Amino acid sequence: MSDDRPTRVIRARDWQWEGVPRREYKTEGTHFRGVTRQTLLGEGAGETALDCETRYFEVAPGGYTSLEQHRHPHSVVILRGHGEVILDDRLEPVAPHDVVYIGPWAAHQFHAAADEPLGFLCVVSRDRDRPQLADDETVARIARNPDVAARLRR
Amino acid sequence: MSDDRPTRVIRARDWQWEGVPRREYKTEGTHFRGVTRQTLLGEGAGETALDCETRYFEVAPGGYTSLEQHRHPHSVVILRGHGEVILDDRLEPVAPHDVVYIGPWAAHQFHAAADEPLGFLCVVSRDRDRPQLADDETVARIARNPDVAARLRR
Repeated sequence: MSDDRPTRVIRARDWQWEGVPRREYKTEGTHFRGVTRQTLLGEGAGETALDCETRYFEVAPGGYTSLEQHRHPHSVVILRGHGEVILDDRLEPVAPHDVVYIGPWAAHQFHAAADEPLGFLCVVSRDRDRPQLADDETVARIARNPDVAARLRR
Repeated sequence: MSDDRPTRVIRARDWQWEGVPRREYKTEGTHFRGVTRQTLLGEGAGETALDCETRYFEVAPGGYTSLEQHRHPHSVVILRGHGEVILDDRLEPVAPHDVVYIGPWAAHQFHAAADEPLGFLCVVSRDRDRPQLADDETVARIARNPDVAARLRR
């Protein structure tokens, strides 16, 4: 990745992008399982013109992201696998190329199906607030939906 | 699409997203061929929290986008098909999941292979300048590369 020549193709092979490290989703906590992150665009020194970052997340079979909330919205496009997403008080199935819009403060959690990884792009503003774990009040509210209650992990 | 409940899944089926119109890429001109656009997120009244728009473009077999330049950058992820992209003075092959970063003012043009459509996501800032067709000086410069010269269409 050259900073002075940022216009380029970053080639993909088996869900890895050349020169892009696959990182742990979060460095601590037990509120998620089997999640990795690759930041494809928007973090590099040569990419300060971008207002948004494009990241690829992959959730291992049976894994899940943390149940979180924040002010900044997410634009998500599913790329591989199947699963479910908790979107506030709803549980929705997701499949390749489905788009998920997560508005400000909507609690959300992605779950991969038991038999395949769930991979998705997630676009966020470069300048954004820090995610928070969903609070007890929110969890109590969304868990009134029994499908959400059965699926959520904290 | 409900404005007061924007958090949602927009389901994909055969490269069409539910409730999202497939529009002409541009309404006039002969400097492109066989291109459609679907704006997936970022245009809706309930989505003003998004700093960026996520659009899906599809180029018919043998088609191409206009050879253009602008200040705002593009974050592109190829979703289907194969083709080539002119990135300033280079011609690069592209395949599914390849990422293309197009920095400010880089001339660019996407070409689909002859036998299949080329589909890609393109993320841009909501607030952006208007694309311009590449000027004669730029075209003369990038066409010094014979591969670019053979491929470009105006």
